[in-house]
Amino acid sequence: MPSAHIDFDFTSDKVAQRVLKMRSSAVRDLFSAATREDIISLSGGMPDVSLLPQTSIRKAVKAAADDKRALALQYTATDGLLGTKQVVCDLVRDVGIRCKPADVLLTTGAQEALDLVAKAFIDPGDLILAEGPTYLGALQAFSAYEPEIRCIPLDNKGLRTDLLEEELAHIGKGKVKFFYTIPNFQNPAGVTMAPERRKRLIELSEEYDFMIVEDDPYGRLRYEGGHALPLKALSDKVIYLGTVSKTFAPGLRTGWVIAPHCVLARINLVKQGTDLCGSAFTMVVVEHYFRDTPWQKTLQTFIETYRERRDAMLAALEEFFPPEATWTHPEGGFFVWVTLPPYVDTGSMLTTALEKGVTYTPGDSFYPKASAGRNCMRIAFCFESPENLREAIRRLALVINDRLELYRAFLDAGAIKGTGTG
Amino acid sequence: MPSAHIDFDFTSDKVAQRVLKMRSSAVRDLFSAATREDIISLSGGMPDVSLLPQTSIRKAVKAAADDKRALALQYTATDGLLGTKQVVCDLVRDVGIRCKPADVLLTTGAQEALDLVAKAFIDPGDLILAEGPTYLGALQAFSAYEPEIRCIPLDNKGLRTDLLEEELAHIGKGKVKFFYTIPNFQNPAGVTMAPERRKRLIELSEEYDFMIVEDDPYGRLRYEGGHALPLKALSDKVIYLGTVSKTFAPGLRTGWVIAPHCVLARINLVKQGTDLCGSAFTMVVVEHYFRDTPWQKTLQTFIETYRERRDAMLAALEEFFPPEATWTHPEGGFFVWVTLPPYVDTGSMLTTALEKGVTYTPGDSFYPKASAGRNCMRIAFCFESPENLREAIRRLALVINDRLELYRAFLDAGAIKGTGTG
Repeated sequence: MPSAHIDFDFTSDKVAQRVLKMRSSAVRDLFSAATREDIISLSGGMPDVSLLPQTSIRKAVKAAADDKRALALQYTATDGLLGTKQVVCDLVRDVGIRCKPADVLLTTGAQEALDLVAKAFIDPGDLILAEGPTYLGALQAFSAYEPEIRCIPLDNKGLRTDLLEEELAHIGKGKVKFFYTIPNFQNPAGVTMAPERRKRLIELSEEYDFMIVEDDPYGRLRYEGGHALPLKALSDKVIYLGTVSKTFAPGLRTGWVIAPHCVLARINLVKQGTDLCGSAFTMVVVEHYFRDTPWQKTLQTFIETYRERRDAMLAALEEFFPPEATWTHPEGGFFVWVTLPPYVDTGSMLTTALEKGVTYTPGDSFYPKASAGRNCMRIAFCFESPENLREAIRRLALVINDRLELYRAFLDAGAIKGTGTG
Repeated sequence: MPSAHIDFDFTSDKVAQRVLKMRSSAVRDLFSAATREDIISLSGGMPDVSLLPQTSIRKAVKAAADDKRALALQYTATDGLLGTKQVVCDLVRDVGIRCKPADVLLTTGAQEALDLVAKAFIDPGDLILAEGPTYLGALQAFSAYEPEIRCIPLDNKGLRTDLLEEELAHIGKGKVKFFYTIPNFQNPAGVTMAPERRKRLIELSEEYDFMIVEDDPYGRLRYEGGHALPLKALSDKVIYLGTVSKTFAPGLRTGWVIAPHCVLARINLVKQGTDLCGSAFTMVVVEHYFRDTPWQKTLQTFIETYRERRDAMLAALEEFFPPEATWTHPEGGFFVWVTLPPYVDTGSMLTTALEKGVTYTPGDSFYPKASAGRNCMRIAFCFESPENLREAIRRLALVINDRLELYRAFLDAGAIKGTGTG
């Protein structure tokens, strides 16, 4: 007979070293807390799928269930179904990327693409560069393969390519495996890489011999300003990652890698062992959605809704936040990045914020080392109504002001020094 | 402007060491070859999803599209949706496993479960034991984390626990991370572990302090004989992997791990970086299929159809195969394992078989070292009609007899010795 419970940890001497170094995602950890009804969440990056027209969903799903090719229920080749890959080619053509289905490999969301790139290319101790702050899911994906990740600062025009060049000159040629970037409406910083910096990044990748991994989940969600060509449109060597999670639905877990064949061959090989292949069923749903429904109209609804929410959040920040705080002005995407005075620790402040009925993501989650970004936070405007966003920012301002009062008092008394990172 | 083609491999100095050691799946490589119309494939392990009633599919899929909870299109928690986990608990109760939803973590097919277990527990150089031959997808999943994998032989009662004990006595206590087993209708050998050996394996795991990973994709597909309790029903510590791929549809990529909480916590952590979460949409489809459709009746159709095909294959083997060949008698599942005289190399024979219009999987694919199993082959009876199976075995027998003629002549002339593994 099995014992009813095993409460002790009989595996502590069996866990792999890589796991012992992993940090659980603060965002994930907060999901449970954020289910309390009175809490307004600014922490998740969840698209508002309630904006999707039920008729389009039903049409795409019914087409998949009725699919004459009977492909939707079976295994697929590891790189995915041809029809869906063709749809991906059509989608990225709109943003300036020209490719063929053979240049595309479908993944279980873009998160799996990050894992596969890391699994195919990172050896322990390898040097990886990224923007700082950067997407915490990318840090989780990469760190499983135990590289050293160094971050290059951002400003309002995105990656500081001048600082990247300095770092590269210091490191030397051929020493960096790849540079990971989210050029559009960066997660978490909300900034966009200026066109001249995109060109410079590509020049540097040639000069210093490193690969570029371009992650573009938000590229289609622009609320102001003109389109900037993706890095992939400027250099065919770029490894470009995309997803339907923000333009259609994350529940379908359909992402892609567009890359040179020598890269795709390695990713295909590691994907065989990781999950054999993605879901044919969701691939077929995605194919039908982007081929047979008025998805462009729905995308426009997404853009208008998110723009309104962004504006509401920015207005509330102006109205409620103290003069010591600064924040970014995103031209698209989901996120605003807030920087507080260096003596504020957003990690420890989160408990108080939760009590006041608001959540955010502490800034240190977005750096490979927990010591950076501690006075920063990511706040998401994608999921809540303008009214809720205003109320959330009002609550958050109260929490911050309380902290600032406290710290101002300590500072005045000379009990602490204003140190930290921003 | 991007260059139109990059034909040279500019990443050869960037690929991770683990990738250089990987072998591409012979089964996958053959998928393209096997699309030639006149070829009968005995190589794939694809269930015959054409047996699924269209009404059940439509019902489950429509329910998912109409789902009031609007969960199906959104991200889920990393461990999956509660309703689907409850369905998994109900499914495994039938085979003797008692668990609660909190004991279950949903994965992107059982293949991802193999990857996550390996990622959470294997450090480079760790010792892993498995049956020999064993599932090639497991070998691919594990080998990405660079363990040493040793195989313990099977006989008609499954794992030779006496040989396992010998090996363990040689290795010593606490030196093996886990033992990987497919106790029911093993892939590729087709044999089933006898109940007394299951008990012995669990005793040995306690005595020598290793974990057991039980992979049970075929357990519900029994064509003769009585049910044997899973290892998980005998010890709560076992890490049990399951999937809907063989009882419903692989295109939904829904699998699961049932394990103690200390194991699930580590798997949850590594899954965050691997793909964040599985597809909510396919989880909801799976939930509705097993809750709201007559799936037991469909399972019975699967069993009757596959039994008929197995019988056709076994009869054809008796009729056509030479006396030098031996093969297993599977009580369920998809596969028969054929052993030829040691001087036959099934890898090099495959080209001739393809020319004659039949494919199989060479035996060396199922061992961690390509030197073992070279005179063996896996033949699948799951996908083809009884008539096609008979024709395929007839063609294969011709190819084998040709080889045997040739080798008999060489043997008679004393030009080669009969060596190899079986």
